[in-house]
Amino acid sequence: MSSLHIIPPALERLIRSFSQLPGIGSKTATRLALNILRRPAAEAREMGAALTELHGAIRLCSCCMTFSEQDPCVICSDQRRDASLICVVEQPADLMAIEKTDSYRGHYHILHGVLSPVDGIGPEEIKVRELVARVQSNGISEVLIATSSTVPGEATASYLIDRLQHLPAKLTRLACGIPMGMDIKYADQYTLARAIQSRANLREP
Amino acid sequence: MSSLHIIPPALERLIRSFSQLPGIGSKTATRLALNILRRPAAEAREMGAALTELHGAIRLCSCCMTFSEQDPCVICSDQRRDASLICVVEQPADLMAIEKTDSYRGHYHILHGVLSPVDGIGPEEIKVRELVARVQSNGISEVLIATSSTVPGEATASYLIDRLQHLPAKLTRLACGIPMGMDIKYADQYTLARAIQSRANLREP
Ligand SMILES: [Zn+2]
Ligand SMILES: [Zn+2]
Repeated sequence: MSSLHIIPPALERLIRSFSQLPGIGSKTATRLALNILRRPAAEAREMGAALTELHGAIRLCSCCMTFSEQDPCVICSDQRRDASLICVVEQPADLMAIEKTDSYRGHYHILHGVLSPVDGIGPEEIKVRELVARVQSNGISEVLIATSSTVPGEATASYLIDRLQHLPAKLTRLACGIPMGMDIKYADQYTLARAIQSRANLREP
Repeated sequence: MSSLHIIPPALERLIRSFSQLPGIGSKTATRLALNILRRPAAEAREMGAALTELHGAIRLCSCCMTFSEQDPCVICSDQRRDASLICVVEQPADLMAIEKTDSYRGHYHILHGVLSPVDGIGPEEIKVRELVARVQSNGISEVLIATSSTVPGEATASYLIDRLQHLPAKLTRLACGIPMGMDIKYADQYTLARAIQSRANLREP
């Protein structure tokens, strides 16, 4: 008898569902499902309700495209933030990471992906059109392109610079260099090369 | 504004729920929840339904105490298996691991835990009483104690041996030693010491 047959179908169903998540293999999915089964039923039902209601409760902010229950989102409707500055990120998780730094007071634009021709993801598959329309409208002074410093992230940044450079807004890119607190000898060669190219003047000449 | 306020409540609720699972920190929970939000709503609802229905569908087999939709479970009601042999394990996941080896044809008994006095887990908190009753009934020839070779697993094994040794069934324990295929120099000292103590005779004297 295979080990699959000894797993009750209701448990198997949850394991299969968890296994579809990124980074969750069938072993981890089984461990999580068994753990949930050992906990009170109320906790499983609460998690179930949160999942069932998730997509219905959340839409995209029609301005910045982030996930939100209200439209415009909390950030786009915050009068204390600088609406003339747009930070372009790949995913809502990037927005959360930047908000955590507490060092950015502008608005955002979520692309929901990066250009990846091999995967069939072109400009129409991500929120480029919406970004161009925003920057074309009046009142945008700066677009900070904060895509990752990965190959597709850099390619997406290049494409956006191409699409936006004829517009009056200033275009900027997140600085690349040695991570704070990292010993130089532990930095990879590409990061180190970039840090040298982007070296900052300590004293203006 | 803290980064928490920018997460929509419906998403925050799912992140909080996922964070309660073992090995899932708030970062992983956020990543999983955002991933689910990017996938079709039908997948989230399927996972939600599996969770909501989990505890209602699954009970403990009244014989071996494993999770099952039927009582007795698939294993306890399998006529081809040897009902006189009971393998005692800590959790249903251990049963699954043993079934995967395809080298055991007896029945099981799930303790649903190990003795851990510091955590307030004594014999009454795990399925010891049920095991003793099974072994006291006629027809049990061998009890294979397959708790982990951890400190609480060994303590539980010792306790079970104490409780069961006056009964006629033979008591056995899983062999401990060098893992198959492992170079001896990579084995930890405790495993190696145990392998030496438990060394097998290659030729009977
Ligand atoms: Zn917005
Ligand atoms: Zn059973």
